[in-house]
Amino acid sequence: MQQVHEDRYTTRLSTRPEQIARRDSVVHAKGGTNPPIDPSLVRDFERDGFIVLEDVFSPKEVARMRGTANEMRDYPDSLADETVISERDSGAVRSVFAIHRQTSDFDVVARDPRLADVARYILDDEVYIHQSRLNYKPAFKGKEFYWHSDFETWHAEDGMPDMRALSMSVMLTDNHPQAGPVMFVPGSHETFISCVGETPEDNYKSSLKRQETGIPDADSIAQLVDEGGIVAPAPKAGSVVIFDCNTLHASNGNITPFERMNAFFVFNAWSNRLKAPFAANSERPEHIAHRRVEAPLAPLSKVTGRLS
Amino acid sequence: MQQVHEDRYTTRLSTRPEQIARRDSVVHAKGGTNPPIDPSLVRDFERDGFIVLEDVFSPKEVARMRGTANEMRDYPDSLADETVISERDSGAVRSVFAIHRQTSDFDVVARDPRLADVARYILDDEVYIHQSRLNYKPAFKGKEFYWHSDFETWHAEDGMPDMRALSMSVMLTDNHPQAGPVMFVPGSHETFISCVGETPEDNYKSSLKRQETGIPDADSIAQLVDEGGIVAPAPKAGSVVIFDCNTLHASNGNITPFERMNAFFVFNAWSNRLKAPFAANSERPEHIAHRRVEAPLAPLSKVTGRLS
Repeated sequence: MQQVHEDRYTTRLSTRPEQIARRDSVVHAKGGTNPPIDPSLVRDFERDGFIVLEDVFSPKEVARMRGTANEMRDYPDSLADETVISERDSGAVRSVFAIHRQTSDFDVVARDPRLADVARYILDDEVYIHQSRLNYKPAFKGKEFYWHSDFETWHAEDGMPDMRALSMSVMLTDNHPQAGPVMFVPGSHETFISCVGETPEDNYKSSLKRQETGIPDADSIAQLVDEGGIVAPAPKAGSVVIFDCNTLHASNGNITPFERMNAFFVFNAWSNRLKAPFAANSERPEHIAHRRVEAPLAPLSKVTGRLS
Repeated sequence: MQQVHEDRYTTRLSTRPEQIARRDSVVHAKGGTNPPIDPSLVRDFERDGFIVLEDVFSPKEVARMRGTANEMRDYPDSLADETVISERDSGAVRSVFAIHRQTSDFDVVARDPRLADVARYILDDEVYIHQSRLNYKPAFKGKEFYWHSDFETWHAEDGMPDMRALSMSVMLTDNHPQAGPVMFVPGSHETFISCVGETPEDNYKSSLKRQETGIPDADSIAQLVDEGGIVAPAPKAGSVVIFDCNTLHASNGNITPFERMNAFFVFNAWSNRLKAPFAANSERPEHIAHRRVEAPLAPLSKVTGRLS
């Protein structure tokens, strides 16, 4: 693992967990520029590491996205095999990756200014999609997802150098507080939890079903929760949850009759493109961590770029 | 299975699930008598099938109960072996049964008029403890408990004839909405879901870890949730959640750093004592379903009966 870029967030190299104070800005935009969302939301994002934008997409747009999402789940044969991830126990489809590359509907969503302009502002750069996916949490039998920082994995396994990326989760169903919504630890994005344990070969094949490497230690989780609490927004369909790449999050299982579905996009700053992995022997495959990206995300054409 | 008492809630006898409208009152008290709690709470209980009484026990009383509960978990050797139930995967203690028989502290709690008088009023009868237990939901690794009606099990496996029993859960820790609190379906207590499948021999040995018989069908759960929604009260330590024997409930797993602990008492009407099981070949053991009960619960002596 020859590294040109300095490793400012070492992880999976020690036998003891460590905490490293964040070395990057959260909101990269310089003062003086006008944000595309309410300035108080930008401040909330900086403080908490996540925000909720209500009613971003109309019911008509949501219906169309949900239709496409259901089709992808029900007819996965039309998708690249490796992009379809199923639940460990039940075999039900849990995620489909690279959705903006596999359907024009989700390509349009990724480039929609209601999302991409917010990403450009917060990251203060041109942006591209590092990863996209549909997440299905089935009714009655959805499994939990344990606490983690996405950045820890993207840094260790994908070679993302700095904390200059964020995720946007577009709600395709109404969320119920007890149906396993994502739980965030406010303020946790300011601390990088360096995890113990080496990355096993082909770790991604199992980690997308259940993560066993890059797991924060219980003491660090308890400490950050003690300081920041746990908040689990459960917004309506059409809302968008935006969270920083290093915000500690998890989700409970879902035994309610409410199915949950969202479309998930990771925006990375163009200047923060991937290097060699910082703590793994090989890169994860292209459909999970995009490297073949020629240019930043282009704005939607005013003529063709409409979802509905 | 010779039955003298009529089986008004047949279950586990058919190959198709069925719904039976409740044949018993919810609040058995006749009008005109003064309830020991606010009358609006009695009306809520009748309508929803559950209520929360806030701040019933003082912090000092809670500390004492929690101390006793921790001791029972950490030194289970002092308890009858069969009363200690551990988690399927982790081996952590999940429940201790018959706590009012094994410690004077919890005997006193069961007879405390703040609990027993409410039970006597709602059931309009003398009462006794059908079952008691401590429930521990460990931090980080607590498992979920799927949807069920307690009465379905008590009727099928314990021979409890009618819906004239209720449960009280005394919170020994503050509850967090995302730490797997009990979820109730308001109004579900008015419908008995007759379940499919026969009761296996010694079913209780596995069902206390994960229930596989007496599970309501998904369509019935979805229908009742559609009508009543899902409510998951997360009250502070010292509060008491009271719910009817037939209220549909479940709980999510707990991956938060918050441990959850409660003391659980089932009050049954003296006139509703157990018969032979209605849908099982043998009785469950005494520590799970009390049959050796000589007399109704006696009030606490004013002199000796104090928890703190």
